[in-house]
Amino acid sequence: MLSGMSSLDVRSIEQEALDLTRELCRKPSVSAEGRALGETAELVETLLTGAGFETRQLTVDGAPPAVYGELAGEGDASLLLYNHYDVQPVDPIELWDSPPFEPTLRDDRLFARGAADNKAEIGVRLATIRAMREAGDALPLTIRWIVEGEEEVASPHFDAIIEQNADLLRADGCLWEGSGLAMDGRPEIALGFKGNLAIKLDVQALTSDAHSGTAGVLPSAAWRLHAALESIRGVDGTIRVEGFHDAVREPSARAREAVAEQSPSIEDELREFFGVEEFVDGLTGLALRERLTFSPTCNICGIHTGYGGPGIKTVLPAHASAWMDFRLVPDQRPAEVFDLIRSHLEAEGFSDVALTFLASAEPAATPPEDAFASRVIDVAERVIGKPPSIFPLAPASLPVVASLQRHVGLPGLSAPDNPVYGGSAAHAPNEHVRVEDFAPAIEFTIALFDELGR
Amino acid sequence: MLSGMSSLDVRSIEQEALDLTRELCRKPSVSAEGRALGETAELVETLLTGAGFETRQLTVDGAPPAVYGELAGEGDASLLLYNHYDVQPVDPIELWDSPPFEPTLRDDRLFARGAADNKAEIGVRLATIRAMREAGDALPLTIRWIVEGEEEVASPHFDAIIEQNADLLRADGCLWEGSGLAMDGRPEIALGFKGNLAIKLDVQALTSDAHSGTAGVLPSAAWRLHAALESIRGVDGTIRVEGFHDAVREPSARAREAVAEQSPSIEDELREFFGVEEFVDGLTGLALRERLTFSPTCNICGIHTGYGGPGIKTVLPAHASAWMDFRLVPDQRPAEVFDLIRSHLEAEGFSDVALTFLASAEPAATPPEDAFASRVIDVAERVIGKPPSIFPLAPASLPVVASLQRHVGLPGLSAPDNPVYGGSAAHAPNEHVRVEDFAPAIEFTIALFDELGR
Repeated sequence: MLSGMSSLDVRSIEQEALDLTRELCRKPSVSAEGRALGETAELVETLLTGAGFETRQLTVDGAPPAVYGELAGEGDASLLLYNHYDVQPVDPIELWDSPPFEPTLRDDRLFARGAADNKAEIGVRLATIRAMREAGDALPLTIRWIVEGEEEVASPHFDAIIEQNADLLRADGCLWEGSGLAMDGRPEIALGFKGNLAIKLDVQALTSDAHSGTAGVLPSAAWRLHAALESIRGVDGTIRVEGFHDAVREPSARAREAVAEQSPSIEDELREFFGVEEFVDGLTGLALRERLTFSPTCNICGIHTGYGGPGIKTVLPAHASAWMDFRLVPDQRPAEVFDLIRSHLEAEGFSDVALTFLASAEPAATPPEDAFASRVIDVAERVIGKPPSIFPLAPASLPVVASLQRHVGLPGLSAPDNPVYGGSAAHAPNEHVRVEDFAPAIEFTIALFDELGR
Repeated sequence: MLSGMSSLDVRSIEQEALDLTRELCRKPSVSAEGRALGETAELVETLLTGAGFETRQLTVDGAPPAVYGELAGEGDASLLLYNHYDVQPVDPIELWDSPPFEPTLRDDRLFARGAADNKAEIGVRLATIRAMREAGDALPLTIRWIVEGEEEVASPHFDAIIEQNADLLRADGCLWEGSGLAMDGRPEIALGFKGNLAIKLDVQALTSDAHSGTAGVLPSAAWRLHAALESIRGVDGTIRVEGFHDAVREPSARAREAVAEQSPSIEDELREFFGVEEFVDGLTGLALRERLTFSPTCNICGIHTGYGGPGIKTVLPAHASAWMDFRLVPDQRPAEVFDLIRSHLEAEGFSDVALTFLASAEPAATPPEDAFASRVIDVAERVIGKPPSIFPLAPASLPVVASLQRHVGLPGLSAPDNPVYGGSAAHAPNEHVRVEDFAPAIEFTIALFDELGR
């Protein structure tokens, strides 16, 4: 077993983690745009090799490579780590205060696209593993690590990669992409993630834009798209797609208890970081947290049609597009929901609205009573000194979770080894991490490896 | 009086009109973007001076100059010409087959932004006047000509320019920006134009974009804008703003007769040029033409919110904007309709939706029985050899019409001296005029000047 773990210098690990984060964030690895994915995979592989991992790239046709590494440790214990090296697009670019791919330290915050989601976590894990190896002969457990390149486009090929490489990925459990600390300092732990279905609606009402004087008689792509959206979801928020809610499973009593005991500061964070005066339907407290955890969503990611510049252009737009995503809860299946939407549009007379499947993720969770999960939760409470705030189902999606369950049979969770907080602006302009959040993430990681290796 | 008018060489006037059109179209005079307006005014003034006009620039604070020119003729008759030298924005630029400000002759069509609306008409009028002066000592009538630079942004300062210069603009009648020939060859004549009100709606639901996982509880700018639009206009097309229709005046019997006698090819043109399979509400024939002429509209010029790139970005957009325009009929007033929309949004609980006034035009028309109009209509029928298709109220808007009525008391109309046709794609990509349409426009102009100068 390793000795001297407590003598590790967290400050120097922190510095190395920050440097690694910066290095990773300089890569514009936007998967939606197919940018810099191969070279970012190369960088990740080089970094893993440098930390002592035996690595290889796992590929399937049409996908950027996933990087796999294995670092043998003492004893029989093993842990699988999951991350992704791709990031979200940067638009609206004009709202960034510094260039998204030039990591910038400002007020003890590191700003860069991908810093919070999830390159700083790769930095923390890597720097911690390096330091632990330097401090002893071997880690107390075997670490396997898979880093994919399509998470931000809902991992369309990752299930196949996992299926083909299931033997490499076996372990006692998995740490998915991680969580951080709530505003009140309680560690956040996610035991599962909602599913997701991303679609696009397109209306081509005319062969070309027309003078808006003709609006009384020529069909409008904009109003037609509006009508389709209205048909899918009423202005009161009701999702009108027939059968949409049929597969929703009643949450377990344990899951409900966990939500009741979650940090109430979730609400304060949302209020503060997004300037919210009133939540949807006036939600607050437990009702807000239950909605966040247990309800599917119907979201407009974007609508674009016609003119959008200064002043006015009096045009009747020929084309209109909407990008939507639906977060799904057990046992909703993205493919089934997609079919329901298709049937709904046809039944409601919207056969002129083109429906495109963009991406999906299955909802999946590890039960709160799982033994691996319990050990991680205990370490978090011990190291951070506060009771974890547990999400039976986090509101985001992580396709790997269902794939690992299906092909490898692994329990897993998101542990607080990611230096993020509620204001990190993941997916948004000025994404950043706070330097102060690196130390607790590093301390937790050291303690967890030590505990799991016992 | 001029002699030898019939000996004018229409082919050489056509060539000169095409050259002038090209020269004007090379100027990117996009008023919505404030581009190249001063230099285009200079060009217009130079061209008018070269044709013998005494010119000056008419200015008011905050507006690009209007160019005024006067060319004294024989006798007492006088005619006011109106044009604008500004054009619509070019987006969506990717749909243009040639650069919009590099006039391109292709298949006997001249492609350029502003060619149809309305630089080719300036070319036709100017080339014809030049040729008539060269053929004789003087024109048979005095021509006054005003060319403004803000028509495509609804002429916010032109009413003031007309009011301050009313004495310059007196004449027996006015030829507004002109019309062309219908698909069946009948000359189109507009006796009036609908009004217009352009507005913008903005929703700022969050201080920054959020991860779409929060869509269950965080307010959505996109859905909120959707709800505001739904409140303004139902999916069945009903405009729901209380009082919106109150001021609509019943069309006169003469106006209804004119619409009944319009060229039925209006419908075929719309069908062909915009690829329409079915019009709004299944309209066809007289019902379609009556809707086009007598009904106000509620149009979405554009909606922009959130992501709009390749693949998907699962974001909850903080901001959403819609650009709208309402074509108005007598006696609707844009300022009153704007107030009604503001009151409606407040009454319906949309005080969080910011409403911006962008531009407006009053509806106005010359009565079908007006003497000046009758003379122009007769010339059109005689020269073109087919009965004019008359619009008591054209579906577009032309702010100058109401201003001339109010401050100068001038009758006027849009006569077929503009080489445009239904497929000209005014305001749209690949705007163009056909070379074949120049000759009839020139012949009509010659005959009209001759007739009015008798």
